Amino acid sequence: MSQVGSSYTLSTRTELAFSDAVARVRDELTHEGFGVLCEIDVQATLKQKLGVDREPYLILGACNPPLAHEALDAEPGLGVLLPCNVVVYQRRGQTHIAAVDAAQMLSIVGNDELADTASEVRRRLSAVVERAAESPGHPLDDHA
Amino acid sequence: MSQVGSSYTLSTRTELAFSDAVARVRDELTHEGFGVLCEIDVQATLKQKLGVDREPYLILGACNPPLAHEALDAEPGLGVLLPCNVVVYQRRGQTHIAAVDAAQMLSIVGNDELADTASEVRRRLSAVVERAAESPGHPLDDHA
Repeated sequence: MSQVGSSYTLSTRTELAFSDAVARVRDELTHEGFGVLCEIDVQATLKQKLGVDREPYLILGACNPPLAHEALDAEPGLGVLLPCNVVVYQRRGQTHIAAVDAAQMLSIVGNDELADTASEVRRRLSAVVERAAESPGHPLDDHA
Repeated sequence: MSQVGSSYTLSTRTELAFSDAVARVRDELTHEGFGVLCEIDVQATLKQKLGVDREPYLILGACNPPLAHEALDAEPGLGVLLPCNVVVYQRRGQTHIAAVDAAQMLSIVGNDELADTASEVRRRLSAVVERAAESPGHPLDDHA
């Protein structure tokens, strides 16, 4: 399986085209109980504001309402880290999908009450990234 | 001065009413070169999705385009942590303003190339929080 973890993301490359990967991520987020509360087209925004050309880059701000409700009760300032982002971007022609690693984020929040919630968010977003990246003809098992 | 730092936020309480604090935060973000790329009304969202009643809570996703452009070049996956949020919320009737501490976030990203950018974002968002919280009759100096 091609998923690799850096310190703060759950990320993978995919053979899907950028727009197909975006559609797959949306489907998988819904499947895992996340709504998309905001979207940022980074390529369009930086073109408009700075006139620069970048490859496609979309930020999807995902929220699982019951988990967010629970987390904000335990940690009122947590909104500075919400929603949980999943990004799809193209880099040198290759499509990447990445989600924030909620369990790693917890390390800077330092509130043990959030451990179960962070772990649950991590599990679900990891499933989103992994399943969204699968292309029909090339299941991830082929990369193992 | 009333600003206190936890591990991941730059935060303060303010004597302003919630809606006045939101207006002040917007002004100060503009003044520091941040556009608001997305907004999440947490109170309304959780009421709609879960039927629960919470106090007012607004997430403003702020982006300084030149700094974001620079940061994404150094760290393509950084979009999972963008935009930089400033939140205004009410808790037990008291208004709070908090911004993400970009320098603390950098500790989990682990890319030294971002140190100057993170430090600059931190400086600007700290100024936003501090100045937005000042109420006309009660400058922060009074709290020192």
